[in-house]
Amino acid sequence: MTQTTKVLALCGSLRAKSSNKGLLRYAQSNAPEGMSIEIADLAAIPFYNADISEPPAAVTQLLAQFGNADAFIFGGPEYNYSISPALKNALDWASRAPNNALLGGKAAAIMGAGGGMGTSRAQYHLRQVCVFVDVHPLNKPEVFANAFAGQFDADGNLTDERIKDGVKAQLAALAAWSLQLRK
Amino acid sequence: MTQTTKVLALCGSLRAKSSNKGLLRYAQSNAPEGMSIEIADLAAIPFYNADISEPPAAVTQLLAQFGNADAFIFGGPEYNYSISPALKNALDWASRAPNNALLGGKAAAIMGAGGGMGTSRAQYHLRQVCVFVDVHPLNKPEVFANAFAGQFDADGNLTDERIKDGVKAQLAALAAWSLQLRK
Amino acid sequence: MTQTTKVLALCGSLRAKSSNKGLLRYAQSNAPEGMSIEIADLAAIPFYNADISEPPAAVTQLLAQFGNADAFIFGGPEYNYSISPALKNALDWASRAPNNALLGGKAAAIMGAGGGMGTSRAQYHLRQVCVFVDVHPLNKPEVFANAFAGQFDADGNLTDERIKDGVKAQLAALAAWSLQLRK
Amino acid sequence: MTQTTKVLALCGSLRAKSSNKGLLRYAQSNAPEGMSIEIADLAAIPFYNADISEPPAAVTQLLAQFGNADAFIFGGPEYNYSISPALKNALDWASRAPNNALLGGKAAAIMGAGGGMGTSRAQYHLRQVCVFVDVHPLNKPEVFANAFAGQFDADGNLTDERIKDGVKAQLAALAAWSLQLRK
Repeated sequence: MTQTTKVLALCGSLRAKSSNKGLLRYAQSNAPEGMSIEIADLAAIPFYNADISEPPAAVTQLLAQFGNADAFIFGGPEYNYSISPALKNALDWASRAPNNALLGGKAAAIMGAGGGMGTSRAQYHLRQVCVFVDVHPLNKPEVFANAFAGQFDADGNLTDERIKDGVKAQLAALAAWSLQLRK
Repeated sequence: MTQTTKVLALCGSLRAKSSNKGLLRYAQSNAPEGMSIEIADLAAIPFYNADISEPPAAVTQLLAQFGNADAFIFGGPEYNYSISPALKNALDWASRAPNNALLGGKAAAIMGAGGGMGTSRAQYHLRQVCVFVDVHPLNKPEVFANAFAGQFDADGNLTDERIKDGVKAQLAALAAWSLQLRK
Repeated sequence: MTQTTKVLALCGSLRAKSSNKGLLRYAQSNAPEGMSIEIADLAAIPFYNADISEPPAAVTQLLAQFGNADAFIFGGPEYNYSISPALKNALDWASRAPNNALLGGKAAAIMGAGGGMGTSRAQYHLRQVCVFVDVHPLNKPEVFANAFAGQFDADGNLTDERIKDGVKAQLAALAAWSLQLRK
Repeated sequence: MTQTTKVLALCGSLRAKSSNKGLLRYAQSNAPEGMSIEIADLAAIPFYNADISEPPAAVTQLLAQFGNADAFIFGGPEYNYSISPALKNALDWASRAPNNALLGGKAAAIMGAGGGMGTSRAQYHLRQVCVFVDVHPLNKPEVFANAFAGQFDADGNLTDERIKDGVKAQLAALAAWSLQLRK
C-alpha cells in the first residue's frame, strides 16, 4: 500500500492572477501518485497580534490545515529581496501552537516566481525561518521561476516546460523526503 | 542654524503593550536637538496586493509620512528568526512609489527587542531589504534589547539604562548619518 | 546491534588554545554510545584553487575523512559576522568531489563559541552553504557558546555546565538525525 | 581640482584565468577620471590565526594597501552559496587593526562572476560582513556577471557589453559615494 502525503501549499501573493498562484496550481494538478495538495486561502488572515485572543475563523481553519498536513509547499514572490508578508504571517500564526505541533519536524518544498533571481533571496530568508519552526525544506531541487520572461500566461498559468519539469521533480523529492522524515 | 532631521519610526509589533513600541517611545522622547520623531500607526494597513488600485486612507497617510521623512527608524520584534510582517509590509507599500521617491537614498537606524539574540536575525534580513529599497542603515551602533530580561516594565516602557544609552547613541549617529547623506 | 555513527568534526579556528577547539574536544570526549568523533586537522589545508591539479597530502587525507564520515560537526568562531575562512575552505574542497559524494545527504550539527551572539550570524551563513552541498544540519538544539564570559578556561577547555548539556543534547540529536537520514 | 579616489580591489579567486580577475582588470582599465584602482595580490596571504604574532610580508603589504585606500572593490566567485575564503580572509586580517582604522567608514562596490545567480548569494553574505567592519557598500547598481555564459573569453577577460556598462556605472557610483562619505 502506498503511503499518502497530504501537502498544504501556501502562496505569498494575494493577487488574483499571480504567477505564484499559477505555480502552485500547476503543482496541485501534477501531484505524484499518493500525494494530495491543498492550497491555503490567505486572503482573510489578519496580521498576527498577541492581543487577539480569539482569532477569526479564517485563522482557525488555516491552523487546522497546517495541523492536518504532512508536508508543505511554500510559494510566493520576492518583495524587496525578502519574503512576502502574507506568507511569513501565515507561518507566524502557525508557529504559536503549543509544542510547535503544527509545524515541527515536517518536510517542505520551496518554489517561487519573481524577477531575475527567481525569488532566491526570499527563499534563503524563508529557510532561516524554517530553522526556528523546525521544518525541513528540501535542499534540492530548488525551483526559481521568472514571472516576467514568458514562463506564465496573462492569467498566471505556468507554461514553461523547463519549470514544469522542475516542479514535478521537486514534488517527487518532497514525497520521498516527507516519508523519510516520518519513519 | 541647525538643520533639522524628520524621522519616521515604524514598529513591527501591533500589540498594545509591545516592548518594541516602548523602545520607539523612548527614542521619540529622547530625540537629540534638531530631530523630530513621528511614530507610524500600522494598525489599519492591509497586506500589499497589486490588485488594490485605490489603497485605503491609512495607506495614503503612511506613504505621505514616508515621503515627508528624512530618515527612518525600523523597530520591531523578531518572529521566527526573521522580520515581522507588519513592518515588512509597510516597506513593501512604500517601495511601490514611482522612482523609489519615498525611500531612495535615505538613512535609517534599526533597533529591536526580542529574545536572547536581541532581534539580530530579523535585523540582518531587514538590512537586505534596505539594499533593494536603497535605504542606508547605520552600521553602528546596533541596538539589541531583550524583551524578557527585565529591561522593560509591564507596559512595555524601557527601563534599562544600558539600552537607553544605546538608543541615544544610535539617534545621535542617525542625525549625523542623515545629514551626511543629504549633503 | 547498535548502528554506529562516524562523525567528522571541523573547527574554523586555527589557534592552539581556541575555545572552539575546546568545544569540539568536549564533544569528542562525550560522544554518545555508538558515535565516534574524529577532529580534522585543517592547519595544512591551502586555499582552494582550481589551478591546483594535485592537492597536497593534507587535502587528500581530509577528503578521505569527509568520505568516511556519516555525519559532521561544524564548529568555529564567527569572524566579522560570518564564517571563518578555514572552515568554509574545507567545505569548498570537499564539495568538488564528483557527484557530491563526500557530503551529499549527510547530517550535521553546528556549534560555536564567539561573542555575545554566540556565532549565530556565522551559523546561519553556514546553513546556507549546507543547502548547496546538500548537507542537512539539525534545526535544534542550536549551541551558542560565549568565548569571553567564563565558559572556557585559559586553555580553551569548556567548563560551563549549561553549554556542556547543550553539546550533549546536540550529539544525541545528531545520532538520531543521522540514522534517520540513512534509512 | 578633482578629488582623487584611491581604490583597492580584491578578488576572491586565486585561479590564474579567473573571470573574476578579468572583471577587476576591466574595472582597473576603465576607472573614471580621478579614480585609481590597485588590485591586491592575495596568493601569499595565509589564513588568519591569532597565534601569528608576526604576519608575513605579504600580509603587511596588504594591510598597508587597505590603509592607503579610500574605497574598495570586492570581487570574486560564489563558492557553495557564500563568500570565497580568500576574500573573506583578507577582510578578516584587515579588521584586526586597532580602531578599525583600515576599513571603518570607507565605501565599497561589490561585483562578481558566477553561475546563474551571478554570485548574489555570496554578495549578500559579504554585505553582512560590511556591517561589522563598518564599510558602506553601494546599494546600487549591483553587478552580477555569469562566468559560464559567454561573457568572458578563455583567459577570463570580460567581453560582454552589458556587463561592461554595469561595471562602469558602478565605478561612477563608487566615486560619488566615496566622496560623499569623506565629506
